[in-house]
Amino acid sequence: MTSIAHPTPTPFTGEDYATRMARVVHDAVAAGLDGLLVTPGPDLVWLTAYRPTAITERLTILVLRPDRQPTMVVPALERPDAEGADGTAAVSLVEWTDGTDPYQVAGALLDPSGRYGVSDSAWAMHLLGLQRQLPRSSYVALTDGMPMLRAVKDPAELARLSAAGAAADAVYEQIVQTRFAGRRENEVAAELAGLLRRFGHEQVDFTVVGSGPNGANPHHEAGDRMIERGDTVVLDFGGLMFGYGSDTSRTVAVGEPAPEVQQVHDIVRRAQQAAVEAVRPGISCQQIDRVARSVISDAGYGEQFIHRTGHGIGVTTHEPPYIVEGEEQLLLPGMCFSIEPGIYLAGRFGIRIEDIVTVTEDGGRRLNNTSHDLRVVD
Amino acid sequence: MTSIAHPTPTPFTGEDYATRMARVVHDAVAAGLDGLLVTPGPDLVWLTAYRPTAITERLTILVLRPDRQPTMVVPALERPDAEGADGTAAVSLVEWTDGTDPYQVAGALLDPSGRYGVSDSAWAMHLLGLQRQLPRSSYVALTDGMPMLRAVKDPAELARLSAAGAAADAVYEQIVQTRFAGRRENEVAAELAGLLRRFGHEQVDFTVVGSGPNGANPHHEAGDRMIERGDTVVLDFGGLMFGYGSDTSRTVAVGEPAPEVQQVHDIVRRAQQAAVEAVRPGISCQQIDRVARSVISDAGYGEQFIHRTGHGIGVTTHEPPYIVEGEEQLLLPGMCFSIEPGIYLAGRFGIRIEDIVTVTEDGGRRLNNTSHDLRVVD
Repeated sequence: MTSIAHPTPTPFTGEDYATRMARVVHDAVAAGLDGLLVTPGPDLVWLTAYRPTAITERLTILVLRPDRQPTMVVPALERPDAEGADGTAAVSLVEWTDGTDPYQVAGALLDPSGRYGVSDSAWAMHLLGLQRQLPRSSYVALTDGMPMLRAVKDPAELARLSAAGAAADAVYEQIVQTRFAGRRENEVAAELAGLLRRFGHEQVDFTVVGSGPNGANPHHEAGDRMIERGDTVVLDFGGLMFGYGSDTSRTVAVGEPAPEVQQVHDIVRRAQQAAVEAVRPGISCQQIDRVARSVISDAGYGEQFIHRTGHGIGVTTHEPPYIVEGEEQLLLPGMCFSIEPGIYLAGRFGIRIEDIVTVTEDGGRRLNNTSHDLRVVD
Repeated sequence: MTSIAHPTPTPFTGEDYATRMARVVHDAVAAGLDGLLVTPGPDLVWLTAYRPTAITERLTILVLRPDRQPTMVVPALERPDAEGADGTAAVSLVEWTDGTDPYQVAGALLDPSGRYGVSDSAWAMHLLGLQRQLPRSSYVALTDGMPMLRAVKDPAELARLSAAGAAADAVYEQIVQTRFAGRRENEVAAELAGLLRRFGHEQVDFTVVGSGPNGANPHHEAGDRMIERGDTVVLDFGGLMFGYGSDTSRTVAVGEPAPEVQQVHDIVRRAQQAAVEAVRPGISCQQIDRVARSVISDAGYGEQFIHRTGHGIGVTTHEPPYIVEGEEQLLLPGMCFSIEPGIYLAGRFGIRIEDIVTVTEDGGRRLNNTSHDLRVVD
């Protein structure tokens, strides 16, 4: 098996992380916020490279305010881990010990009547603790208050996303050369996971293998169904490489496809192509969704396209911008997201085609580049 | 290698889950709440056996009210997964589709001025969405409003916790017969993980191997430090078996221990023994913490016991009741938690001894039963 070369990118430095923190505080003020409260998860990884061993009931929270040094409240016994992260050199650490009230400690770092953006996935328990501690304070989820916090990628991030996309493409080229008929979905899924790792991913997030009727459930992962000749198989896989995500889908036919399969596949292919071609700075997210949806609706399958057209990707494989009706955000150069229309015929089969696309100065560019033709596999 | 026999317990039935839902609604009313809002995570697993493939920004929420059938709001494309869970037969499913407002859908199921208990780990984003939708509603984290929701285990749950504890004990008996000196921490950790699986665990949650100075960081997992003669090694490992947790710690000496190591180990052993002997219905959690802490403080190491004495265990390996100063909850028969005092000498070594203990009608009973003597390994 061939491998592909990915030069390891230069690691982000403490200065890179400090620059990100400074930039988002500036953006927070512009968004009418007094600061940001970031709990463990992708935002914290992106801002400080700190990832606690486990996300637990013990409060860890990074407080970013325009008038202060970044400060992170940490449980005393996790302080060594926090100190060791690549991006916490410029962060002042404040510890709390079991048996004391962490919300009092965090509250002392906040303006009692301030308005703060808080990580989407912060525990409700922690938010309620802060609301109780500072009854006049107010909060907004980061995705609502600063939805585009991490959405515009810089060149170093784009290089990582491109490498992840190229690796995922190599996985696809490899898997379609293997036999599908007579294997179970979860065997193919295990092979996809192995290939993602072999081609450089440090983390596998999902390996969907939806054969025959299972392909009509967009969130089916992989089960023990035996793949048969005549099936279509939705393949949708991705994970993290150099800390950044991949996510691509293709649908293959096991043996010669029925005319209806070919026809539905062609509608999805046209919808995906039209949406990618519509990408450019200044068009809204929902407009991209409408472009894909109208191709499918015009072909009579609107009711069978049961999910949004796409989602952003970066240090996670699901993040803003969401390519969905109601999202009026305009595209900006450097944004990266999936375009993945699908048609799902309950009890029969499903078709989905997905590429990651980045917005350039004057259009869009795919980070996945395998063929969109309906591939026939053995 | 020998194995140990664990008859697979009878699976919980749809009726078992319905009974749990009915019981917690009753308890919620008694706690002054109008209902419970349960998002994906351990509470939802315990109540319905439903575990979405991923916990994402898409709202899934189970609404339990005394005056209505249990109802779960789910993203349309995850409905098939939700329908397939063992405990959702008695749950009415209400779906929402991308591009619509899930908080409107969930809000319609709530009393606009009701007071609800919400899962600790519900995303802040979702809580803020509900607060925005129903400005007169109020919320309390389940651990605050109904801290003992899952704390008292029934006999079927105790049987699972006992099996998990016995398996962890078997892992310890096996690992101490292997060579430590000359192996790296992460090699020993990998062996612990393999043994946990071999002895019946379906999930490994942590495998701490803290050798020499690394043992003085209670949350150190395992690194590439080479274990040497003269080291102490803190072993702390656990995971899930039949869906219920194990968690045990022992500290071993590689070769004959120095007198100081033996002395500190003896203090921890006495603290742990005293705390276990204090367990009985009607004593408070904080009192158990004080018993362990006073033994260590009296010996002059109070400042080096830098964490609480323990935590509950069940479908997770960290949950109420917490055995910590300030927790006035009285122990009840059927509660299960760790008792794990430790002494941490920064830069030198650490000692921790941990057993899971359950409260009986008139005392406490260990679910871990390996020797507390300082074991000397090669």
